[in-house]
Amino acid sequence: MNTGDIFKQQFKIDTTIYQGFISLFKDTNPLHTQKDFAISKGFKAEVMFGNILNGFISYFIGECLPVKNVIIQKQEINFRKPVYLDDELFFFAEITEHFESVNTFEFKYSFKKQDDIIVANGKIYIGLI
Amino acid sequence: MNTGDIFKQQFKIDTTIYQGFISLFKDTNPLHTQKDFAISKGFKAEVMFGNILNGFISYFIGECLPVKNVIIQKQEINFRKPVYLDDELFFFAEITEHFESVNTFEFKYSFKKQDDIIVANGKIYIGLI
Repeated sequence: MNTGDIFKQQFKIDTTIYQGFISLFKDTNPLHTQKDFAISKGFKAEVMFGNILNGFISYFIGECLPVKNVIIQKQEINFRKPVYLDDELFFFAEITEHFESVNTFEFKYSFKKQDDIIVANGKIYIGLI
Repeated sequence: MNTGDIFKQQFKIDTTIYQGFISLFKDTNPLHTQKDFAISKGFKAEVMFGNILNGFISYFIGECLPVKNVIIQKQEINFRKPVYLDDELFFFAEITEHFESVNTFEFKYSFKKQDDIIVANGKIYIGLI
């Protein structure tokens, strides 16, 4: 892995992921589970849980890199736009730094929706183990 | 909610959460799923997924605050020590800033293990909707 390496992945928040997240973490906040409430707050439907995207990041780091001997050291995520059920998410990540002394890689990433709108972005720091 | 407010919560990564996370996000990285591999890398057993802690943060923000009309704007997490299956996690959060002009609250939080060791910490920014 080297600075400048680019990775792309596609994700979809379908009913299985959405309901599975609720079952697992017991977050039933009305913004995420009550359509009328979400609409009353200016959204078009229930807003998907932002932390589903963090689960996708876990998959990306654990499964989609050319090496498996990795551990996440730090994550940052900015939630910029709402994501709704069945939205397709296009994940793009680039290695922007390699701190050789500690063997840490910095990734900058974004999730875009169908219409090229960035819905979330941030940084991930991983170490080789 | 006001600056200085403190919140405490207890979580446990049991088999249901651990296996449920694997089922949901399909991250089967050997550090998290192969005991021998984890031990060969210096850990005492399979390391739990850091993003399970982000799921707990979703629950905390969605369910444990005095108001429900909230949305997460940004999250940061630093993974400081490994978490293992059946570890009890003690979550502590404090409202450290209230940016009144945009109605954003900043929380500083940490997860500690049984023995008072900080395993993860960071900041969460939420808005009122």
